[in-house]
Amino acid sequence: MLSKAVVKYIKSLQVKKYRNQHQAFVVEGAKSVLELLQSEFELQHLLVTEDFLREHTAILGKGLNYEVVKEEDLIKAGTFASNNAALAVASMRKLPALQIKPSDLIIALDDIRDPGNLGTIIRIADWYGIKHVVCSESCADFYNPKVISSTMGSFTRIQVHYLDLPDWLQQHTSKFNIYGAALNGENLHQMQLKPEGIVVLGNEANGIRPEVAKQVNHLIKIPAFGGAESLNVATATAIIIDNFKRNS
Amino acid sequence: MLSKAVVKYIKSLQVKKYRNQHQAFVVEGAKSVLELLQSEFELQHLLVTEDFLREHTAILGKGLNYEVVKEEDLIKAGTFASNNAALAVASMRKLPALQIKPSDLIIALDDIRDPGNLGTIIRIADWYGIKHVVCSESCADFYNPKVISSTMGSFTRIQVHYLDLPDWLQQHTSKFNIYGAALNGENLHQMQLKPEGIVVLGNEANGIRPEVAKQVNHLIKIPAFGGAESLNVATATAIIIDNFKRNS
Repeated sequence: MLSKAVVKYIKSLQVKKYRNQHQAFVVEGAKSVLELLQSEFELQHLLVTEDFLREHTAILGKGLNYEVVKEEDLIKAGTFASNNAALAVASMRKLPALQIKPSDLIIALDDIRDPGNLGTIIRIADWYGIKHVVCSESCADFYNPKVISSTMGSFTRIQVHYLDLPDWLQQHTSKFNIYGAALNGENLHQMQLKPEGIVVLGNEANGIRPEVAKQVNHLIKIPAFGGAESLNVATATAIIIDNFKRNS
Repeated sequence: MLSKAVVKYIKSLQVKKYRNQHQAFVVEGAKSVLELLQSEFELQHLLVTEDFLREHTAILGKGLNYEVVKEEDLIKAGTFASNNAALAVASMRKLPALQIKPSDLIIALDDIRDPGNLGTIIRIADWYGIKHVVCSESCADFYNPKVISSTMGSFTRIQVHYLDLPDWLQQHTSKFNIYGAALNGENLHQMQLKPEGIVVLGNEANGIRPEVAKQVNHLIKIPAFGGAESLNVATATAIIIDNFKRNS
C-alpha cells in the first residue's frame, strides 16, 4: 500500500522548485526506469507493478529496495496517463565541470521552452554519440518529468549544462567553429562539414537571440523544397547533426 | 456571444466518429487558421479574438463570415491550453485518386499512432516538397486536432491517403523502389540515393509489420554513434528524407 506521504512527495517533484529543494526527480515507465537502474543515479524510491517485477526479477533482485504497487497507484503518483510498469525517484547528480575541445561536436540550445523538444534533442544527441548539451538558463528544466520521459532513457548518458549562453559562447569563439541554425544560413547540403564544433539551435518561435547570434561564426540552413515555413526544432537538430556526422 | 450549440458542435469534432458524421474538423491557433484561410478548404465557422481581427483585417475583410469572441471562449471550445487568436471549423475535402510515378518520393506510414508524430511528419513532407503521405488504416486520423495543429499549416498542402498498406505496396513493388526503415538495414550514409521511391516508416514501438516488410525491397538504417536504442519516428523520417533529398 503506497503511503500518502510518498505520493505527496512524488507529486511535489512535478514542480521545479521542489525538485531543486529535494535535489530529486521522477522517472516513469519501463524503458526509462530500467535505464535508470543501470545508471549511476542514486535511487530514492522504486515502485513497480507485479507484472514489471515478474519480467525483471534479475535486475530487481540485486539488493534494491522496491515497493510493489498497483497500476492505478503509479498513475495517481506520476504524470503518465497510463503506466503499467514502474516509477522511480532518483537524486539529481552533480555534473563534472564542462570541458570541451575544438574536435568535439556539441549541441547548444538557446531558450528551448518545450520539454518534449528538449527531451527529444537529448535522445538525438545520444544517438549520434554527442556527450554534452549546453542550455541557456531559460531552457526547459532537464529534470522536468516530460523531458526525462521523452529522452527514452538517454537522460542517463548525456550531460546537460545550464549556463549564460552568450557569455559561454564568447569564451569559445576564437578556438571553436560555432554554427547557428537560421533561415538565412548557408545550405547545409552544400557544405563540407566535419563532425566538430558547437551547433546552436534557437527558440521554437523566435530562433536564436541576437546576443547569441553575435557569437555564431557560420549560419547554416536546412534547404527547403516545399511550402512549410519552418521545421520543429528537434527535427531540425536531428537533420543538422546527421549532416555533421555523415562524414565521420 | 458564442452560442452553446456552436461550442457543442466544435467539441463534438474532437471525436473521429463525429468528424466523419459531419465531414468537418477543427483548426486552432493563428498560424494554422491563416493557412486554412489561404487554402481551398471550405470554411464552416471562424471564431477570432479582437487582437487577431486587428492584426489581420486585410484577410478577414474578404467577405468572410466570422464571429469575434473572447480568448476564454476559444479555449472552452477548442483543445489548446491557450489560444489568443482564432479557431475555425472547415469541411473535409475529397482527395483526388492517388496517382504516383516511380520518380516521385513518397512517405508511407505503417501504424503510426501518435497524432503529434503524424502531424510532424506531414510538416516534414511539406518542407521537403513531398506531396503524398500514404497511411495504413490504423494510423492516427489526419483530422485529429492534434495532428492538424502539429502540422503547423502543412495540412493544407499535403495529401494524406489512408489505404490497405500491404496491398497497396504489393501493387507497386515491381516498378518502385520501396525502402523500409529498420535497425538491421543498410547504412544510409553509405548509399547513393536518388530522391525517388516509397519510404516506409513503422509503428513507434514495433516498427514495420511483417506483412508490410515483405513488400520492402531495401532496408535502410540511420547509423548510430551513441547509446540510444532508437529515434522518435518523426525524427527518423526527417533524417531519412534529408538523405534522399541531398542529391536533388
